[in-house]
Amino acid sequence: MERPDKDLAFMLRYENIAWYEDGAVRILDRRCYPRRVEFVTCRTHGEVAQAIADMVTQSAGPYPAAAMGMALAAYECRGKTEAEQRAFLRAAADRISHARPTTAKRMERVCETMLEAAEAAWRNGAPVDLAIKARAIEANNSRYEKIGRIATHLVDKFPDDGTILTQCFAETIVGMMLKEAAARGKRLRIFCPETRPYFQGARLTATVCCEMGFDVTVITDNMPAFVMQREHVDVFTSAADAITLDGHVINKVGTFQIAIAAKYLGVPYYVTGVPDTVHRSASDVKIEFRDPSFVLEAMGVKTARDGVKGYYPAFDVTPPELITGVVTDKGILSPYRLSDYGDRDAYEVVV
Amino acid sequence: MERPDKDLAFMLRYENIAWYEDGAVRILDRRCYPRRVEFVTCRTHGEVAQAIADMVTQSAGPYPAAAMGMALAAYECRGKTEAEQRAFLRAAADRISHARPTTAKRMERVCETMLEAAEAAWRNGAPVDLAIKARAIEANNSRYEKIGRIATHLVDKFPDDGTILTQCFAETIVGMMLKEAAARGKRLRIFCPETRPYFQGARLTATVCCEMGFDVTVITDNMPAFVMQREHVDVFTSAADAITLDGHVINKVGTFQIAIAAKYLGVPYYVTGVPDTVHRSASDVKIEFRDPSFVLEAMGVKTARDGVKGYYPAFDVTPPELITGVVTDKGILSPYRLSDYGDRDAYEVVV
Repeated sequence: MERPDKDLAFMLRYENIAWYEDGAVRILDRRCYPRRVEFVTCRTHGEVAQAIADMVTQSAGPYPAAAMGMALAAYECRGKTEAEQRAFLRAAADRISHARPTTAKRMERVCETMLEAAEAAWRNGAPVDLAIKARAIEANNSRYEKIGRIATHLVDKFPDDGTILTQCFAETIVGMMLKEAAARGKRLRIFCPETRPYFQGARLTATVCCEMGFDVTVITDNMPAFVMQREHVDVFTSAADAITLDGHVINKVGTFQIAIAAKYLGVPYYVTGVPDTVHRSASDVKIEFRDPSFVLEAMGVKTARDGVKGYYPAFDVTPPELITGVVTDKGILSPYRLSDYGDRDAYEVVV
Repeated sequence: MERPDKDLAFMLRYENIAWYEDGAVRILDRRCYPRRVEFVTCRTHGEVAQAIADMVTQSAGPYPAAAMGMALAAYECRGKTEAEQRAFLRAAADRISHARPTTAKRMERVCETMLEAAEAAWRNGAPVDLAIKARAIEANNSRYEKIGRIATHLVDKFPDDGTILTQCFAETIVGMMLKEAAARGKRLRIFCPETRPYFQGARLTATVCCEMGFDVTVITDNMPAFVMQREHVDVFTSAADAITLDGHVINKVGTFQIAIAAKYLGVPYYVTGVPDTVHRSASDVKIEFRDPSFVLEAMGVKTARDGVKGYYPAFDVTPPELITGVVTDKGILSPYRLSDYGDRDAYEVVV
């Protein structure tokens, strides 16, 4: 199994990496990145599930991690009968899918696809772990192509000298968006809210923007309205953990209030992604509450005294009335007309 | 000069303390409070001005610090002629008033009042430093009485089992509000945004609420809209660094976007304070930009890589259309009818 193509190599520099090799999955530890570039090495699929639960990787990162985790599960049960392997992989899929509640349904689809790759391998007598890994890379490459097309449509909405407000990491799309903007000679000024409590905006989004040579400014999460009002922001953009068919965006907590402020201030909000056929309406989405103690500290230092409670919803839900357009690979759609998008690969994750 | 009355003693526990004694002004260092209770000792009025500039004290804290700083200035020039002392105090007033730009006009009035106390002392042959100190305490006590009346009107708007969202520290009014709520047997649940970059909400507001026995939860600054939507917040309330006569609230950055979200979600926003006769319209207010590097760290730990810029407006401006009522000591006024409030002591600061 070879390393992937150059586009993948380009992107891997900037995003969640999960890679199966030599009986282990190595996952880039995004909790300390970019201060330290460290990898968590998982020797079992259970450790992969735990790493996902512990936010070693996030945003779209858990999906390739899950896929590579299935390759590792295949390696773990390689000496057993086909029936035993099948049972083992089914249990592994269940374990990995439920590492985080909000994404469980989509994780199930990712794992299901990997099980299909395993079935094909058994039929062909191919090594199951490598067949799953190949399928994981194929899914990732297909995702990159799609995100490239999304980036093209998004950058159409940016002025040549524009000011852009982001939210949270937005992963691959930020890199693709900036690559596209640079190719068209657009000079962008980018404001990144820091994204508490994990500082993904300050640590990750700003790092990508800076390394790609753009003018990037970090603000705290209480400043987006001020910045939109005072710094003439042309576009607010975010990715989405899910875009329901009824036009609701589930994304990192804070997206909702920036979208409210953007509407109030007349700044268009373009969300990138494709409609989610798993989460058809906002009510299908279970908002994940994470360990509240994370909110009571910053960069590992406690901020509040004992006795004070924390509260940590990972996501919020932005309704269609606050969304100017959903930027898909097929063009920009109204959030009220997402059924125009048509079908898509069920497991596909575009962030 | 005796320690002030019991009400003052009650409040001093919870707020900015500045105290002139033995040729020095001691100021509670709010930058590390409540983790550590430490005081910065200033031996000259110049050091007081520097402490204010360095955010040793903030919110309403700079005003008593400035007044006590004037007492210290009087001590510094005690051996000189009356004319020399007058010139020295005028220069000190100028130095202290301009420690921070946004508050310069009101600081000038505080210092002007202290100069009046000095003039009276010269006429009466009283010790000038102690006369200024007495005037500073008198101003503070008058402020506490007024805030007590504001608290009464504000608590009228709280249900018996209510949920309240705060913003930033809001100092004295939070303590008075909770004292009043407790006296009336109201059980409040309080959500405090942490207030980056200084964490005043997490460190200070939440500490007051917790020590006074209330159910208090800290959230990050990207969560207010989610909390208002999901936790049935009854009232959003904040103090103000200034309320202009034309109904604009100048307060800690973030107030504006919470107010936008509150309006969108139908949550009333009550701001406490009295109309500011110094800043008559929003255009009279100069928004202070502070050292951008503060935004690039959290609790002293760097969050973004080198090359990424920061941006740090200390305040924002909330227009009257987002304000349900201005809670003054004379009752609750429409932000469009603040001239109904009438005159007031020009130097008075109510936060």
